[in-house]
Amino acid sequence: MYDIIIIGAGSAGISAYKQAVKHTDNILIINHGPWDTTCARVGCMPSKLLISSANRLHDAQTLENVGIQANLKVDTSNVMSRVRKYRDHFTSAVLEDVNSWKDKHKINGIASFIDKSTIQVNNQTYQAKSFILAVGSEPRRNEEWEKIGNRLLTSDTIFELEQLPQSIAVIGSGSIATELAEALYHLGVEVTIFSRSSHIAIATSPKIQSLIQENFNQKLNIHFETTPTSLTKEKEWVCVKYKNRENQNEEEIKVEYVLNATGRTSLLSSLKLENIESSFSDIKNLPIDNSTKQLKNYPIFIVGDAYTTTPVQHEASYEGKISVNNCLSYPNVNDKKTYPPLSIVFSSPEIAVVGKSYKQLKDAEHKFTVGFASYTDQGRATVLGKNIGGIEVYFDSTTQELLGAEIYVTEAEHLAHLLAWSLSEKANLKQLLSKPYYHPTLEEGLRTSLRDAYSQLKSSD
Amino acid sequence: MYDIIIIGAGSAGISAYKQAVKHTDNILIINHGPWDTTCARVGCMPSKLLISSANRLHDAQTLENVGIQANLKVDTSNVMSRVRKYRDHFTSAVLEDVNSWKDKHKINGIASFIDKSTIQVNNQTYQAKSFILAVGSEPRRNEEWEKIGNRLLTSDTIFELEQLPQSIAVIGSGSIATELAEALYHLGVEVTIFSRSSHIAIATSPKIQSLIQENFNQKLNIHFETTPTSLTKEKEWVCVKYKNRENQNEEEIKVEYVLNATGRTSLLSSLKLENIESSFSDIKNLPIDNSTKQLKNYPIFIVGDAYTTTPVQHEASYEGKISVNNCLSYPNVNDKKTYPPLSIVFSSPEIAVVGKSYKQLKDAEHKFTVGFASYTDQGRATVLGKNIGGIEVYFDSTTQELLGAEIYVTEAEHLAHLLAWSLSEKANLKQLLSKPYYHPTLEEGLRTSLRDAYSQLKSSD
Repeated sequence: MYDIIIIGAGSAGISAYKQAVKHTDNILIINHGPWDTTCARVGCMPSKLLISSANRLHDAQTLENVGIQANLKVDTSNVMSRVRKYRDHFTSAVLEDVNSWKDKHKINGIASFIDKSTIQVNNQTYQAKSFILAVGSEPRRNEEWEKIGNRLLTSDTIFELEQLPQSIAVIGSGSIATELAEALYHLGVEVTIFSRSSHIAIATSPKIQSLIQENFNQKLNIHFETTPTSLTKEKEWVCVKYKNRENQNEEEIKVEYVLNATGRTSLLSSLKLENIESSFSDIKNLPIDNSTKQLKNYPIFIVGDAYTTTPVQHEASYEGKISVNNCLSYPNVNDKKTYPPLSIVFSSPEIAVVGKSYKQLKDAEHKFTVGFASYTDQGRATVLGKNIGGIEVYFDSTTQELLGAEIYVTEAEHLAHLLAWSLSEKANLKQLLSKPYYHPTLEEGLRTSLRDAYSQLKSSD
Repeated sequence: MYDIIIIGAGSAGISAYKQAVKHTDNILIINHGPWDTTCARVGCMPSKLLISSANRLHDAQTLENVGIQANLKVDTSNVMSRVRKYRDHFTSAVLEDVNSWKDKHKINGIASFIDKSTIQVNNQTYQAKSFILAVGSEPRRNEEWEKIGNRLLTSDTIFELEQLPQSIAVIGSGSIATELAEALYHLGVEVTIFSRSSHIAIATSPKIQSLIQENFNQKLNIHFETTPTSLTKEKEWVCVKYKNRENQNEEEIKVEYVLNATGRTSLLSSLKLENIESSFSDIKNLPIDNSTKQLKNYPIFIVGDAYTTTPVQHEASYEGKISVNNCLSYPNVNDKKTYPPLSIVFSSPEIAVVGKSYKQLKDAEHKFTVGFASYTDQGRATVLGKNIGGIEVYFDSTTQELLGAEIYVTEAEHLAHLLAWSLSEKANLKQLLSKPYYHPTLEEGLRTSLRDAYSQLKSSD
């Protein structure tokens, strides 16, 4: 009987393994498919590589924003190969790490539960005192759309394109859809977005969302509340039919590719959790503790994006690590997630939500004060020629404690870190205003939003 | 008798006025020259405008770093007019503010002390219970060099150039010299630096300094430990003679302009402080409290860059504000500067020093541990094609409290804010390691440096 069996060797599973092996040699990690991570292979890294080329090109094409007239001719034919070159650099670093692990710890195969302490892999059974389930997720599939064959892309396949497409329809407007659609647009691809919702990415605040849409509408064709009615392959093109929301007409566009970015599906169903408890067949409603990721009262922890509302890499790694501590101390399960929520979309400008979102606070009927700062006249943003968007900060109206923020400004990722770190210190408004803000920086815009909150709270005293 | 007389209406004086006027109408602010700030007119803002054009152009000229072949023809003839256009936008915002102040509060003229509570301006005397001296500084002058007339520039005059020069010799390698020299180089100007020292800008750590020099040496001609022996005007050129440090030969270069960026001189001497106490004629050694900026035990506070080792705008504003509180509570002088030191040079990559510098810790024989992370293979920096430099973090070897950091990486300003805010929380290493670091960000490189410090402290346990 093993001390711990880890199922899945992605960001969460690898983190769990590295933590576990510090404490016990009596462990097993089982993985199906490549022994690298979604993040490095098809997620964070290749998307950020594409975005980095896109942003640099967009900046070069808008040199007039900083007083430079330019005649620019570009050849983007190496962009996709650069994505893969560095993607391979990142995945091989992961694989090198995995290759250094003991062979006896690793099994290739699909695992499924027989009972609460027994799993089966490749027709063999293994038992453990505790389990860490880190099986991850995959892009949501749509069989109807798959009829167009390799013209239907997902985030799993798009980075394999030899060349940038001429045109693409992106279905979805979540984080992945938003990042890829905008990056492709900046790289010269004709992009049309179809979104079931009327939102772009993660911002829930009406004001921040409207700033995002204002900017996106200037660049991209977006059909909100519209899903294609059919995709058909016609010679070199894919015909995308849809009902125009405004005039209710059936319309169509022809594109080279379609990207299905409608979300991701957990791979938990492969584990046959119903063999532990029959009710666990409903994998969307598993009794999982949000802060320990424990499954009911079992020594079983479900970590990473197999079961989460915040599929981000740093949380997956963190969950992998603390779940090991909880496996080893079971039945005491004390190690809890303490990170404040932090989500970033690497659009241009970037979108970030830190702590509680506007919608979460509204839904909870929390009495909160919103401080806002526009960046259209923010000093440093103006200097950079990137004076777009704004920031909202949320404070408890009584205690003045920081609750969260939604951000849509250039380099939002850094302001988001400042606020996330402050949340972890339970900082209040006065403390935040007493921090140094160097001049001239984007951080000064954050202070403007804090001062806005302060003036409201003061006047309501 | 006024409650407070403020002398100087720059960043510190304006901040002081705004704080003072909240409490008393019985104030006076006296200013010589323009009623805007060094920062907005000839400092932070125009330099950052120039740098922003320079960085954008440099990024466009290195598109191959992100997989894009480009043929780029640029016309930079509007760069200087853009600098002035936005500079004027920023100065007019300051002036608009000043114009809204009561006329009876403002006097144009040069002030000097007659005794500790009396000053003279335009042959008239004024008395006050307390004084805030915010007279600022000016570029250091050199009469010998001034013989080349308008071909000798300072940071006061360089932004008035109609066009970028073809070539320039920059004398000095401090923050201002470094920022301007590199920006001009990126804008296509032929730049040669002459530096009395063997250092570039503010980094005191041998390792960080060597990373900076490695990068600068690839771009610019730098003559360390060399001051020009003569500057002479020859028709359209300035001939700069100097002794070559390596072969001891007399050599010369011809340039269009020379920038004297050898430092700044306090304007305190105009105030005749010796009429308060004769020893105050030695303005370099005034008895000023570092945290309150009080002059000896007088109700006199010297704020901003008239007397400081850290001439940065956010500290000037801060000092202006707290000095008002101390004027009003005098003889109780309790309001102290609590900001941790934070200095940023907006080079590319940026240089930042936070808290105690390497040299300060060495000089104080502090027992400290240095954590280092190179950014040459840092994930996000690699993705951005900006994988240059590194970061050092300093921790007390006993308490593991954060002491400071020196940084030379892209977007260092943001990591510097994170660390400065952490210093103000007196964070220790363990607390810093428990913060969220989103993936993939430059902040993860900071964590790498923290882990390096951790492994050293752990192994020395």
